[in-house]
Amino acid sequence: MDPIDPECGLDVALAVVGGKWKPLILYHLQHGPRRFGELKRLVAGISEKVLIQQLRDLQTVGVLVRRDYQEVPPRVDYTITPFGMTLVETLIPLCRWGTQNRAEVARRLPESSSSVSAA
Amino acid sequence: MDPIDPECGLDVALAVVGGKWKPLILYHLQHGPRRFGELKRLVAGISEKVLIQQLRDLQTVGVLVRRDYQEVPPRVDYTITPFGMTLVETLIPLCRWGTQNRAEVARRLPESSSSVSAA
Repeated sequence: MDPIDPECGLDVALAVVGGKWKPLILYHLQHGPRRFGELKRLVAGISEKVLIQQLRDLQTVGVLVRRDYQEVPPRVDYTITPFGMTLVETLIPLCRWGTQNRAEVARRLPESSSSVSAA
Repeated sequence: MDPIDPECGLDVALAVVGGKWKPLILYHLQHGPRRFGELKRLVAGISEKVLIQQLRDLQTVGVLVRRDYQEVPPRVDYTITPFGMTLVETLIPLCRWGTQNRAEVARRLPESSSSVSAA
């Protein structure tokens, strides 16, 4: 295997995308802008308060931009930046690993079966 | 860019390695067994209680094994499994991303500069 560099930047990457929700938020933004309500529905299980905070964090670090259309009723959406897309690309191997190991993980973590269903 | 498969297993991967600490724990286990005290020192900032729980979670899902040498004073270490190594490999692009973007992230997230130092 290709060894991880001892000068590994995993700490940096985790400061940006660590946690339970951020990778999923990025995943759901990769194909185009999403409104807040859409994201809340797509990222199943996240609370409104937590989603707001996660979106703010991702904005601060330049991974996504928030656009307020100044309309009534309010229209706001979130778009991933080119910088954010470079991060989404790093998540692809994790996606593949999860796809390949879905059944195995569901067998070993039955308590998570509400979120991880065997294929 | 290689698009993420719509049947993406990111939910599965995050059920196993999601969170602030687990990727770092795996990273520090990739080159051989580590004792609890070593891990606590290597994964800077983690509390004893949280480390115990994270190690238990990773054991449950078969990513690492705990070995108790039945010695006095107690000697216990943790070793990554071949299954766990397949997961470590998926973290390499994240490491690289972090290495490439360390300065940029430190600039944008100055409040995290205690953990993310500009190179």
